[in-house]
Amino acid sequence: MARSGEFDLIERLFRPLAEGFPGALNLADDAALVPVSPGSRLAVTTDALVAGVHFRTSDPPDLVARKALRVNLSDLAAMGAKPLGLLVAACFPKDADDAWFAQFAKGLAQDKAEFNVPIIGGDTVRTSGPFTLAVTALGEVEEARAFKRSAARVGDAILVSGTIGDGALGLDVLEGRLSSLFEDEKKYLAERYLLPRPRLELGQALAACRKVNAGMDVSDGLLADLGHICKASGLGADVEIAKVPLSSPARAAVKADTALMARVLTGGDDYELLLTAPERSVAQIQEIASSLRLTLTVIGRMREGEGVTALDASGAAVPFASSGWRHF
Amino acid sequence: MARSGEFDLIERLFRPLAEGFPGALNLADDAALVPVSPGSRLAVTTDALVAGVHFRTSDPPDLVARKALRVNLSDLAAMGAKPLGLLVAACFPKDADDAWFAQFAKGLAQDKAEFNVPIIGGDTVRTSGPFTLAVTALGEVEEARAFKRSAARVGDAILVSGTIGDGALGLDVLEGRLSSLFEDEKKYLAERYLLPRPRLELGQALAACRKVNAGMDVSDGLLADLGHICKASGLGADVEIAKVPLSSPARAAVKADTALMARVLTGGDDYELLLTAPERSVAQIQEIASSLRLTLTVIGRMREGEGVTALDASGAAVPFASSGWRHF
Repeated sequence: MARSGEFDLIERLFRPLAEGFPGALNLADDAALVPVSPGSRLAVTTDALVAGVHFRTSDPPDLVARKALRVNLSDLAAMGAKPLGLLVAACFPKDADDAWFAQFAKGLAQDKAEFNVPIIGGDTVRTSGPFTLAVTALGEVEEARAFKRSAARVGDAILVSGTIGDGALGLDVLEGRLSSLFEDEKKYLAERYLLPRPRLELGQALAACRKVNAGMDVSDGLLADLGHICKASGLGADVEIAKVPLSSPARAAVKADTALMARVLTGGDDYELLLTAPERSVAQIQEIASSLRLTLTVIGRMREGEGVTALDASGAAVPFASSGWRHF
Repeated sequence: MARSGEFDLIERLFRPLAEGFPGALNLADDAALVPVSPGSRLAVTTDALVAGVHFRTSDPPDLVARKALRVNLSDLAAMGAKPLGLLVAACFPKDADDAWFAQFAKGLAQDKAEFNVPIIGGDTVRTSGPFTLAVTALGEVEEARAFKRSAARVGDAILVSGTIGDGALGLDVLEGRLSSLFEDEKKYLAERYLLPRPRLELGQALAACRKVNAGMDVSDGLLADLGHICKASGLGADVEIAKVPLSSPARAAVKADTALMARVLTGGDDYELLLTAPERSVAQIQEIASSLRLTLTVIGRMREGEGVTALDASGAAVPFASSGWRHF
């Protein structure tokens, strides 16, 4: 098993990822130096992913790397921020060899190119435990334009981008469930789990138009995350289950087993934007999404009170055992 | 065993750590928003620490938390940057209970207060593996004032702050070696290992005076780290071993076993500043250190060529099996 040292790895595999960003100082200094535009705030977020918890131990390292970057970029999208750079602290499993590292670095390189965001720093260590990645994403946004969870108002329409539930159902597929689906449906869902798409352009475009009140991304589960907006804003929310947008494969899965709708609403791993906006702005922000070939669907409304109520077609509240992912 | 969920933990233990920093958004949003002074660059660094690799599995969680913050703050000091905030991605071991978390948070709170740096974000997850912390430190520094490893010049004096070797010898003490030392000597060295002191004030004061050429912090080992400056600057360096400043307990340890000098020069975990500066500026920067009750000691000189040569009292080169910590 070929094994390189840390400095060699950084030089061969990781230094190219910082190309074009002088402030990364070739990944050879104590810290990276990042210019932030005058008038903007730095937006910064960090998320850790652990094998066996946040991804499957068998997932290939390039896909894990890309998912880790995307999950963090999604947090920037959820603030309406423009990405500046990424830092990757990687704890590599003991059995990782040079081929494994090359695949890992290939994943970083693919998404650096896809999202045009340089990897400007990081740390590489060995662990006796599971493969663990902690990514920090840096972006910039004008303070007044950033979406905050606390800014929802009574009567706001609640909107989500794209479709909900694909990530959770994709994990089901990868774990051998949902066997009644067609192969292409399975493939679609699995890919949505493995490679979520951070809604960076949409976030920035919506921040620029200043018509959105509250915003976040859906990671823990739609109902749980909407609950975070409710709590931060001191309000409640009604969601009409029938309005939650599903992809065609997700619709097929739910049709075959209606109990899966709970999984859609609470499973998480969606990385879509969840927004609230005044009713009068809905058409305008939907047009912005449409110009980016994305959808924004109204799924409910903010109200006085607290907590999230999910309503069925008859307007009756549907109880769920859990509203989302519990980290512990 | 009492166990709280992530959201409860964040609210009770971690939210107070963000107090006084509005941009942390109460640790309740997707990202923190950080103002960076006009004209300054953001300095950003991330370091991961894994139990059993970077600290001992038996080290108490408050000390581990503090060391993780300090190691990252030391990277900011090494750029001459002023700290703005810290993000902590923590992968907690399965057996951590509420008392353990309280102790961990206490450590974060102590160093937030000691260094006056808020914890502005993070992530908390469970791992089946060892306790792992990835900390990201944010600071600000004017681009022209930041110490870069590549900026050493031929003839520069090489200086280190404080004393070298205490951290590595402190680890020896904690692992039951160096039994010939007095108890107070052992205690001093152990504490230097467990709680390094990032030279933040010194770094900022030296950056402001603009007399330092290259700079970094000593983490991998004095000779290895000086080697990084040599490589980045395209130069070589001569170090006079006898000039390397030792604490009184370290002197006692080396006196009892002269072979320990190799450990001092290559052991790492020092978190002192390693700087190069023109000879004519040495007195001035030593005065700045002195005004902060710190020492800056000249230990050698930058030269043409490559690599680090350690010289004994007779001027002969002393070979070392390893120049420092290998991360893999």
